[in-house]
Amino acid sequence: MSELASTHEPPYYAVIFTSRRAAEHEGYGEMADRMVELAGDQPGFLGIESVREGAIGITISYWDSLEAIDGWRKHVEHREAQRLGRDAWYDEYSVRVARVERSRSFERVED
Amino acid sequence: MSELASTHEPPYYAVIFTSRRAAEHEGYGEMADRMVELAGDQPGFLGIESVREGAIGITISYWDSLEAIDGWRKHVEHREAQRLGRDAWYDEYSVRVARVERSRSFERVED
Repeated sequence: MSELASTHEPPYYAVIFTSRRAAEHEGYGEMADRMVELAGDQPGFLGIESVREGAIGITISYWDSLEAIDGWRKHVEHREAQRLGRDAWYDEYSVRVARVERSRSFERVED
Repeated sequence: MSELASTHEPPYYAVIFTSRRAAEHEGYGEMADRMVELAGDQPGFLGIESVREGAIGITISYWDSLEAIDGWRKHVEHREAQRLGRDAWYDEYSVRVARVERSRSFERVED
């Protein structure tokens, strides 16, 4: 992932997923890529940002409603990834669902 | 930063700062470290998570109220860092203020 998400004006929702990966993580990269791809196909998806530095990762996905988030949480392939995450890939994680209330952006304009 | 933030039950607030750093970033690391330290001293601060992978960075700070966030945004030393960020360190960034409405966590228990 090498881009920032471009989202419309608030309000909308963010799912903040922060994780500490386990030492053993065979198959993790492929699944992470697949989940980003699959999330992007879901109704109500607005964008995603994902960064990992060593064991610590932050992934934020943006959604237009709580219903969209629930749909994604219950997606059958995503549920399998969640199960594998608990069984093998993560030593620790948190999922926070938050309502984005305001935002501002900056982009450099070269002159 | 090598830890996940430990926060109390929702509701509380998150400031999601996502950035794409410029090629030139002398002094950036020291200022970033200083801002994490300084944020931690502010009233209403709950925790912070920060990860960078190449040019892309995500920093999430957690706060107990919008007033606490406004106080931090207006902190004189933080304002100077914001100015340097626009003048030199970042090609692009977004700041989103979001109200955390629900959360869940997982931690591996070795048996």
